[in-house]
Order: sequence, then structure tokens, then C-alpha cells
Amino acid sequence: MAASASSLLAAAASSSCAAISPRLPRGAPAAASVPSPSRHTCPSLRASPARRHQSRFVASVAPTMQPSAESRVSTVVDVDLGDRSYPIYIGAGLLDEPDLLQRHVHGKRVLVVTNTTVAPLYLEKVTWALTHNNPNVSVESVILPDGEQYKDMDTLMKVFDKAIESRLDRRCTFVALGGGVIGDMCGFAAAAFLRGVNFIQIPTTLMAQVDSSVGGKTGINHPLGKNLIGAFYQPQCVLIDTDTLNTLPDRELASGIAEVVKYGLIRDAPFFEWQEKNMSALLAREPSALAYAIKRSCENKAEVVAQDEKESGLRATLNLGHTFGHAIETGTGYGAWLHGEAIAAGTVMAADMSHRLGWIDESIRKRVVDILEQAKLPITPPETMTVEKFKSIMAVDKKVADGLLRLILLKGPLGSCVFTGEYDRKALDETLHAFCNN
Amino acid sequence: MAASASSLLAAAASSSCAAISPRLPRGAPAAASVPSPSRHTCPSLRASPARRHQSRFVASVAPTMQPSAESRVSTVVDVDLGDRSYPIYIGAGLLDEPDLLQRHVHGKRVLVVTNTTVAPLYLEKVTWALTHNNPNVSVESVILPDGEQYKDMDTLMKVFDKAIESRLDRRCTFVALGGGVIGDMCGFAAAAFLRGVNFIQIPTTLMAQVDSSVGGKTGINHPLGKNLIGAFYQPQCVLIDTDTLNTLPDRELASGIAEVVKYGLIRDAPFFEWQEKNMSALLAREPSALAYAIKRSCENKAEVVAQDEKESGLRATLNLGHTFGHAIETGTGYGAWLHGEAIAAGTVMAADMSHRLGWIDESIRKRVVDILEQAKLPITPPETMTVEKFKSIMAVDKKVADGLLRLILLKGPLGSCVFTGEYDRKALDETLHAFCNN
Ligand SMILES: NC(=O)c1ccc[n+]([C@@H]2O[C@H](COP(=O)([O-])OP(=O)(O)OC[C@H]3O[C@@H](n4cnc5c(N)ncnc54)[C@H](O)[C@@H]3O)[C@@H](O)[C@H]2O)c1
Ligand SMILES: NC(=O)c1ccc[n+]([C@@H]2O[C@H](COP(=O)([O-])OP(=O)(O)OC[C@H]3O[C@@H](n4cnc5c(N)ncnc54)[C@H](O)[C@@H]3O)[C@@H](O)[C@H]2O)c1
Ligand SMILES: [Zn+2]
Ligand SMILES: [Zn+2]
Repeated sequence: MAASASSLLAAAASSSCAAISPRLPRGAPAAASVPSPSRHTCPSLRASPARRHQSRFVASVAPTMQPSAESRVSTVVDVDLGDRSYPIYIGAGLLDEPDLLQRHVHGKRVLVVTNTTVAPLYLEKVTWALTHNNPNVSVESVILPDGEQYKDMDTLMKVFDKAIESRLDRRCTFVALGGGVIGDMCGFAAAAFLRGVNFIQIPTTLMAQVDSSVGGKTGINHPLGKNLIGAFYQPQCVLIDTDTLNTLPDRELASGIAEVVKYGLIRDAPFFEWQEKNMSALLAREPSALAYAIKRSCENKAEVVAQDEKESGLRATLNLGHTFGHAIETGTGYGAWLHGEAIAAGTVMAADMSHRLGWIDESIRKRVVDILEQAKLPITPPETMTVEKFKSIMAVDKKVADGLLRLILLKGPLGSCVFTGEYDRKALDETLHAFCNN
Repeated sequence: MAASASSLLAAAASSSCAAISPRLPRGAPAAASVPSPSRHTCPSLRASPARRHQSRFVASVAPTMQPSAESRVSTVVDVDLGDRSYPIYIGAGLLDEPDLLQRHVHGKRVLVVTNTTVAPLYLEKVTWALTHNNPNVSVESVILPDGEQYKDMDTLMKVFDKAIESRLDRRCTFVALGGGVIGDMCGFAAAAFLRGVNFIQIPTTLMAQVDSSVGGKTGINHPLGKNLIGAFYQPQCVLIDTDTLNTLPDRELASGIAEVVKYGLIRDAPFFEWQEKNMSALLAREPSALAYAIKRSCENKAEVVAQDEKESGLRATLNLGHTFGHAIETGTGYGAWLHGEAIAAGTVMAADMSHRLGWIDESIRKRVVDILEQAKLPITPPETMTVEKFKSIMAVDKKVADGLLRLILLKGPLGSCVFTGEYDRKALDETLHAFCNN
């Protein structure tokens, strides 16, 4: 009985996913065009943000009028989740707009959760934005060590320690300032502190801006597997200041692009085609290209999450390449490979397996490899990942149900995928052997 | 602005609470009567459960028919929470009814979370109930150290370790077998494991049967305060086998009675009056008296939780005596005082303060002291609790909002209370000084 229920489940999930793509993207530009510049003036992404930052700090000591009354928000993407709906603000210089942030703070006390790399870059600026013309609010911060290897229970406890020592109460707000690691940990801390407090995401990596800050998945790793402990917990808003990408290392930028490519592959062929034509603009950090990629990624993610918040089916498709990828992250030790790097290799493996199953054309498989190579992302797992290592780690993947490993695989024309446990085990085996030593 | 919002909030909460009591209890017996025996035949609570347990185990090795086809469930109380609604089954011998439990298991894998005291008493029996005539299901268990002092992150991690090492997946079920400590920890583990798995409560203390297993509050302690980390997470069902109380020490029984008294005081005067007349029957563990007290307590709690699941106001009234009580538990070191013992002293303090404020008659204050004394519960905090210790611990209570400590206080006729931050600070001070050394 349990067995038939589980295959029913897999079948249901599979059919609902197959039905979702390709979709007509909202306001996507024609495949070949570079998107028209958004209405705000983007400062050069290469320019140092230090000067503006500095001047704002003076302003916070002796409060003055906002220099610009005009909002810099170029785009708002809404995540539609009933009474848990929230806006994603996307634009250059949004951290220079205190109103935007302050609007979503509850209570008088804020805890900013950040890390040793991001704090020196943006903590003062965020503190300014939270407190400017707002004497009622006081800001505490906790600065965690930087790295995926610290996305664990011990580090999470430091957030609780700080919150409790500071005597924060239920009417406080946690702010995640950093990449996906900080966002995932701060979000889980906000979910669990006093059984849930208000929470704002300020993602500062491309990865976090296009993916992890949106949709409410929060959590930490266990030594035996990625993100195994956590909560679904939605933020009050997501504030994406694209200027923060100025300071991001190239390797981290590429890591985020792996998730951008994912959206095209699972549900948005025109977006994928746009990426094929604009990858060099993205790597060169052209502001309008980055802004468009972030906006379109958030729209795709918001649409999926609005339909399936708790991942009963459709949402799992956002994990294309992630079962293989998580195994790489776990198997190589957290932090050795960046999340997006592992996902890139995992996506190539998923495309390879889909092709072996006869579910996609060779041309699609090749375009997957090409675009990820162009983004300077790895397209094979590291040598240390043996077939056995993959198998044993994948057995604890969150997408296993009643012992059956379900995978997101490409199927049909570009932009279509399925989430299913109904595939020939041989294809999985062949893919593992094609990419790994024994 | 924040200040006025907070006092508005306190006022709203206060008025909604004042409005709720006294209520007409559903099917309460006349104050003086002993409740009529429920329709199943209760085996003597003093009889050892070992023989039946034993015979069932033989049955599990060589499966036979159920000896009794007639259900032993004497009462079902429904917790009405929309799509998170669930039943509370109450009756003697319910663990001898595999169907009841199996109906609420999801998937093929079960993890029973219990402790070193309860495992030797009931783990085999529960394993039998889960697997009898049900070869598809396999049961793992994790046996935690016993005690409030282990309701912490390190012990919680043992549950995750076991779940992950056993390769449990999303379609598994966690079963809490034990008192409130096990229930709170197992519930939080179920909420966070893979961001949420199915969960069943089998409470085995009176405290857990009348209070902690119902309503979905889960969590762990922090060295600086009780239950500060957790989640609202509802079980699939609560299965109360009143036979498990046979093995409970007297001191633990009395601890549970503190919460039974609470329901009477905050919202159910006829129930309080029934308790005044039946306290010796409860202490003598008369089956029908215990069954009635458990049923009426669950009904009261279910009604409150259905109206205010996430504690925006009304639900806070269930914490009568708990702000003082939690301070005692934290201040004396977890485990030194039982939860109900601390709550008993805290309830007397709350009644004292209510009386100083002129909100209740002296006769009510005295009845509170008398009934708790009759239950052999402490009516004053331990000597080590100074005024300063109380104040500093109460400052991190979950009911502080924007710096204002809100309390549940008795107000009006028997069975009426308020949850409010609007009280004369002098009364709080006087109560602390009346009960504590400086
Ligand atoms: N919750 C979700 O839905 C979701 C989705 C995707 C990924 N994730 C998680 O996100 C994590 C990966 O996120 P990530 O790639 O952002 O990694 P990360 O958080 O480790 O950030 C990458 C590096 O960039 C640094 N950094 C951040 N912002 C910077 C800036 N503006 N300038 C310079 N340096 C900066 C960080 O300190 C870090 O060293 C993984 O743990 C992954 O599991 C979660
Ligand atoms: N979640 C809630 O809404 C809620 C409500 C009230 C209390 N609580 C929590 O519950 C905890 C207190 O619960 P408790 O009083 O059950 O304490 P407990 O869980 O520590 O159990 C008390 C003792 O009885 C033992 N025991 C349990 N069942 C037994 C049985 N049938 N026979 C013999 N011994 C048995 C236990 O091993 C323990 O030693 C506290 O942590 C408190 O914060 C939570
Ligand atoms: Zn990812
Ligand atoms: Zn209690």
C-alpha cells in the first residue's frame, strides 16, 4: 500500500511538472535583444561604493534630508503567498533609501546577521539605513565566520546567544545581510527564535539575489548532508541592492549564474536563449544585463513558489542539478566547491542522464554544457567523487521518498523538465560511471 | 509611535482575554458530582500493565487476531485548526489498539523519540502497536537522557543524527513517547528535519497529557531562558493512554495537576470547583477522576488553541503563573524544580499580585493557595530566588514586547483572567518582595 502511494505521488509530481513549461515569460525581451535600460541611472558597477557610503555615514551622525527624493527602485517582484506575501525590491543603490527598509521593520529592535567578509563592506551602511531619521530603532549585529562550513548548528547558536543576551523580544526583526549562507541561517534563526520573529533579507551575492533569498527555504547543513535541518519561513521583504555586486569576486558571480541558467532550463526557454546571447555581458557585470537576469530569475522563482510553497511537487524542479550538486558539496567537504559550481556540474550530469533516457535531444545537452562552460563553471564533478560516494550521499537527499530517489530531469523541448522517481536506474548508473571513477 | 502601538496591542490582548471567561464548559458535570464512568471498562490504574504488555509482544512475533475488536477510546477531543486539525484520543489501554496509531503514520519509516526512563516501560509496546499486522513499517528509536536539563540543542542534535544516519526521508513519522520534555523536543525535531515531517504525540505524564502534547508548541531551552528556541508545529494526532500514568511517580502526577488547576482559574470556574471537590480522588489516581480531568483540560486547551494558534493574545492566558514559574525553573537550574511545581508557586504569585491590584477578592486568592497546597505543590518560590534574580530572568520572557513585560493576571470572578502590560509596577514589586529575599 505504501509502495503504490509513493509511485502515485511520483507520478502526480511528474505530471504536474511536465505541464508547467514552457511558459510565456512576463515581459521578457525578444531573445536577441539586450533589455532596455531601466528608468533609474545605474552608476558604473565598477565604481567603488566607498564614497557614497562614507557620505551617508556623516548624514547618520547629523541627520539631513534625503539627497534624492525619487525612489531608486527599478523593479518590484511580488511573491504571492496569501497573508505571507512580500515584495522583492530590485535596484541599484537601494541601501541608500532608508524608507524602503524601515517600512518592513517590526518593533524597535533589529538584529543584523552577517559575516566577517560582508560586515566591513556593508554593515555600517545597513545600520545607517535602519536608523536614519528613526531614533526609535536600535540595531544589534552578530558577525559570523564566513563559509559554507559554518552553516551549522554551532554557528546558528551564536545567533540565538546574541539575540537572547541582547534581550530581544517577539517584536524584533532579524536582518540577513550577506550571501545564501547568511540568508539561510538567519532565516532559520528567525523562524525558531521565540518560535518566530520578523525577518528581512538583504542578499549581497548574485546567488542569493537570484535564488536563496526568495521563497522562504531556510536551514543549516548536517555533517551528513546539505540543508537537512530547517524551516519554511518567509521574509517580510527582500531588498536587492545590485550595487553590492560591485565587490563580489568573479568566482562567486559565476556561482550565481549557475542558478540563472537553471531557470531557463526548467521553465523559461526565452530566458535561456537571452542568456546564451548575453553571457559575456553578465560576466562583464553590465548593469542592465545583471538587473534583467536578477529580475527575470526572481519572477520565475516567485511564480513557482506561489504555486507550491512547501515543495509538494512543482517547487522541486528548482532543484535541477542539485541532487548531484549537493552530493558534490557534501562529498568534497562544505566550502571546497561553491554551491553554484557544484550545481553546474550537477546540471550537466542531469542533462546527460536526461539525454541517455531519450528525453532530450543531443542539441539541448550540448547547449547546457556550452553555456556553463562560457560562464567558466565546472562541467564535471571533482575526481574524488566516486560512483559509490555519489550513491551513498544521494541516499539521504531530501527528495528521497519511501526509499525512492526522485530527480529533476529535462524532458521535451528546451525549458521543460519533470520531477520523477520513474526512470530507468540504468541511465543513472551510466551517468555516474561516465562522470566518475569507480 | 512604536510605544503607542505596543500599548494598543496590550490593551487589545487584555480586552479579548477578559471577554473569554467564565464560559459554559462543554458537558461538565455538576460541580459536586464525580463524573459518570466512561463507557469502556477501566482496568484498575494500580494494576501492573506488564502482563498485557507481555502477551502483546508474543502476538507481535506470531501475529494473531486482536483480542478485542471493540475500541477502547472513551473520548476524542478535536483540535480545530483548519487543514492542521487533529484528534486527541483519550482512554485506558489505547496502546493496545494498533489501528489507532497506524492510521496516522505516514510513510514506511518511524522514529520513536523517547528517554532512558520511558523506553524500558513503553518502547516495546509502542513498537508493537506500530508494527502489528503492518509489515511495511520499520521502527527506529532514539533514547535520550532523561531530564529538563537535556532539553537543549546538543540533545536535539542526537535526534537529527539518528534520523539522518537511519536515512529517514520526508515520508517518515516521528513519534514522541514520554513527558513534556520529549514531546517538545521531538516536535521541534519533526518541524525542522527536512523542513518538516509527520509527527505523533504519545504523552506519558499527566503534564503532557493535559497540556504540552496539545497545541503545537515545540522547542528547547537556552541556558538563559526556557523554551526560547522552537516552532509552532502541530502533530497528526495525540494518543493518550491513561494506563501509562500507572508508573508515574507521585511528584510528577502533582506537577501535572498544576496545569489542570490553571484551566479552571483562567476560563472554567465549574472545572475549578470540581477540582476542589475531587482533589483527593485525583491524587489517589481514581481512573474516572483522572480521565475527566484530562478530557476537560484537553477541551479547554483545544478551544483556546483553535482561536489563537500562534499566541497573538488569547493563547497567552495558558501561561498563568508561567512568567514567575519559568524564572524559577531557569534560576534554580533546569530540572531542580519540576515544571508544574514552579508553575504552582508562580500561580500563587500571580494570584497574590492580582489581589494587590484589587482585581480579585481575597477569597479567590485563598482558594488558589488552598487547592495547590492540597495537591502537595509548592506555594512559594525557593529561597535562592531573589527579587533581582526574578527581574533579570523575567526580562527575557517571551511575553515581553518592545520592552514591556506582559503578564497573565486573574481579574473578576473565579475563572476570569487578563493578559496585559497595563498594571501598576508597584504591585509586581510588592509581590516579589513578599515572596523573596532581596
Ligand atoms: N534557500 C534557498 O532556497 C537556497 C537557494 C540556493 C542556494 N542556497 C544556499 O546558499 C548558499 C550559497 O550562497 P552563496 O553562493 O551566496 O554563498 P555565500 O553566502 O557563502 O557567499 C559567497 C561568498 O561571498 C561573500 N560575499 C557575500 N556578499 C559579498 C559581497 N557583496 N562582496 C564581496 N563578497 C561577498 C561571502 O562572505 C562568501 O565568502 C548555500 O549554502 C546554498 O545551499 C539556498
Ligand atoms: N509545549 C507545551 O505547550 C508545554 C506545556 C506545558 C509544559 N511543557 C514542557 O513540558 C516539560 C515538562 O513536562 P513533564 O512534566 O512531562 O516532564 P518530563 O518530560 O521531564 O517527565 C517527567 C518525568 O517523568 C518520567 N516519565 C514520563 N512518563 C512516565 C511514565 N509513564 N512513568 C514513569 N515515568 C515517566 C520522565 O522520564 C521524567 O523523568 C517542560 O519542559 C515544559 O516546558 C510544554
Ligand atoms: Zn541552488
Ligand atoms: Zn506549563
